[in-house]
Amino acid sequence: MELKNDLIIRAAKGEQTERTPVWLMRQAGRILPEYRAVRASLSGFIELVKTPDRAAEVTIQPVDILGVDAAIIFSDILVIPEAMGLPYEMVEKKGPLFPETVDSASDLKKLKVADASSDLGYVLDAIKVTKRELDGRVPLIGFAGAPWTIFCYMIEGHGSKTFSKARKMLYNEPVLADQLLQMITDSTIAYLKAQVAAGADIIQIFDSWAGILPANLYERFSLKYISQICDVIEEVPVTVFAKGAYFARRAMGQLNCQTIGLDWNMGIRESRGLIGPEKVLQGNLDPCALYGSEREIQIATQTMLDSFGPYKHIANLGHGVYPDVDPEKVKVFVKTVKEYSAAQR
Amino acid sequence: MELKNDLIIRAAKGEQTERTPVWLMRQAGRILPEYRAVRASLSGFIELVKTPDRAAEVTIQPVDILGVDAAIIFSDILVIPEAMGLPYEMVEKKGPLFPETVDSASDLKKLKVADASSDLGYVLDAIKVTKRELDGRVPLIGFAGAPWTIFCYMIEGHGSKTFSKARKMLYNEPVLADQLLQMITDSTIAYLKAQVAAGADIIQIFDSWAGILPANLYERFSLKYISQICDVIEEVPVTVFAKGAYFARRAMGQLNCQTIGLDWNMGIRESRGLIGPEKVLQGNLDPCALYGSEREIQIATQTMLDSFGPYKHIANLGHGVYPDVDPEKVKVFVKTVKEYSAAQR
Repeated sequence: MELKNDLIIRAAKGEQTERTPVWLMRQAGRILPEYRAVRASLSGFIELVKTPDRAAEVTIQPVDILGVDAAIIFSDILVIPEAMGLPYEMVEKKGPLFPETVDSASDLKKLKVADASSDLGYVLDAIKVTKRELDGRVPLIGFAGAPWTIFCYMIEGHGSKTFSKARKMLYNEPVLADQLLQMITDSTIAYLKAQVAAGADIIQIFDSWAGILPANLYERFSLKYISQICDVIEEVPVTVFAKGAYFARRAMGQLNCQTIGLDWNMGIRESRGLIGPEKVLQGNLDPCALYGSEREIQIATQTMLDSFGPYKHIANLGHGVYPDVDPEKVKVFVKTVKEYSAAQR
Repeated sequence: MELKNDLIIRAAKGEQTERTPVWLMRQAGRILPEYRAVRASLSGFIELVKTPDRAAEVTIQPVDILGVDAAIIFSDILVIPEAMGLPYEMVEKKGPLFPETVDSASDLKKLKVADASSDLGYVLDAIKVTKRELDGRVPLIGFAGAPWTIFCYMIEGHGSKTFSKARKMLYNEPVLADQLLQMITDSTIAYLKAQVAAGADIIQIFDSWAGILPANLYERFSLKYISQICDVIEEVPVTVFAKGAYFARRAMGQLNCQTIGLDWNMGIRESRGLIGPEKVLQGNLDPCALYGSEREIQIATQTMLDSFGPYKHIANLGHGVYPDVDPEKVKVFVKTVKEYSAAQR
């Protein structure tokens, strides 16, 4: 089906577009009362992820309500460990919890490389339903966690400020770490290829815990596997967003992907210098800027657009939108990007 | 009293020393069974902080056991909000919790600038006892949190991955934020001056939550206040450790302080280039490196020492030592610094 709005695809391919495309990480979620209503009708977050019709419904909400230029499939990065044999729970107000973790080679033997069609069919179904209901209005973004970030949860079992247990394994049992990272990578490649086959128009890889590794370990245990993924997803543009990996920007400029996401701490011009002129950059307004007044949001957004320049940029926040942000403020951000970037040309 | 080992003082003043001094952030604490025994004999962490004889005892333990070149007074950065009128609790396995937080100008009116001698006398007493019992063996480091980090806890009430409530105030109520930050700064200056008067030989300012602000807000709401503190602590050397503030390294090179601490993500040569040749640098081995084998720790420590070079360096980890690290591994780190850095000369 032909896309009526393919701005983000053209921008990701480096083409000059009539204005800068815009979407927000976590746009489908708690900021919208319409999302909270759907969520309240189900038993929990994981049930929502596993119910394709409802996942599609909340995926499309921000397209209708906020006017963004892309939808991103409503799902969770932790579906991969579950598909590999390590299930998780979502504890209200606390986050994900894995009752079992990977501590040893014998734990690893219990896991398998995920079979996307059988183990993750519910995500693929949600993508198909979404594509049908979007009817070409905007492109659909598929996604997965980077292997290092998934590894962190599988070793640690829950969120952590330092993920020291996961990092410990890199020092103590690097062979075991590589084996698990490779299994996650193979699972993720199969999963992302299946997402593309199901209709995803663009893919984003989230390395949420990039920022806790020293540069040498990051290249060795994270970028290496992200690079494998980038090398085999050839059908659609790929975005890599590695939060906190400021020390790896030069190396990320060499990845076989189209777009690099910047977090809100990363200086825009400095990042362009390190990443080089070829890549499209995505980001990076401080999510807290949306707590400001309408006028302050306009100014902050315009300043950001001026720093990126009119081309090779996909506008976004530098992190997921915070759940208590007023959707009206998000609309100010989206509207400012659309109007100001058109005038920039 | 004359110091028998004043290596860290001379290094902080930029003098060429016979070897590189070494200590560890969080060296007094849970890694040592001797600490855990003292801690178990009291009702809680805060009682230990408020009992000068016992605080002095655990302060000195790592000097005796690990052979470090400095003691750091056992205390907590959150004694400042408490002295300003906002008490906190330490919840086992969860961290600090403030029953009341600062949400408005009327909340601010309930607070005062801390009076160091009356409100924080227990810390000053602990410093005096420690100095007497150290008997000049090594220098004693005093410390405080940076105003921005203290502000985060006073607004948010507890730890957070994003401190979005604290950051929100910078956008929504910058005048109120500045008023509170100035009160914290004035309290901190009085507190640090009292620590020096009580015997602290060197001062470190910890900006634990530096890394969550964009560069412009960091300069405006954090460095500005750190700079005020640096400008008035003239009697002893000052170290500023701003975790995650990679984007502010050039600006930190301009602070009126002697030493800049680097976290384990910050490239050593890059940091030296940004900070400039004048400052002493402190850090920055990945705390997880201490999970490796004895040989791996030696190699990692030597590589770090080679990168810093023999002078203008105080060896440390890039973050506090993790509580489950074997003290024997810490000794390997300390011994390697001492021997290898002497041979570097």
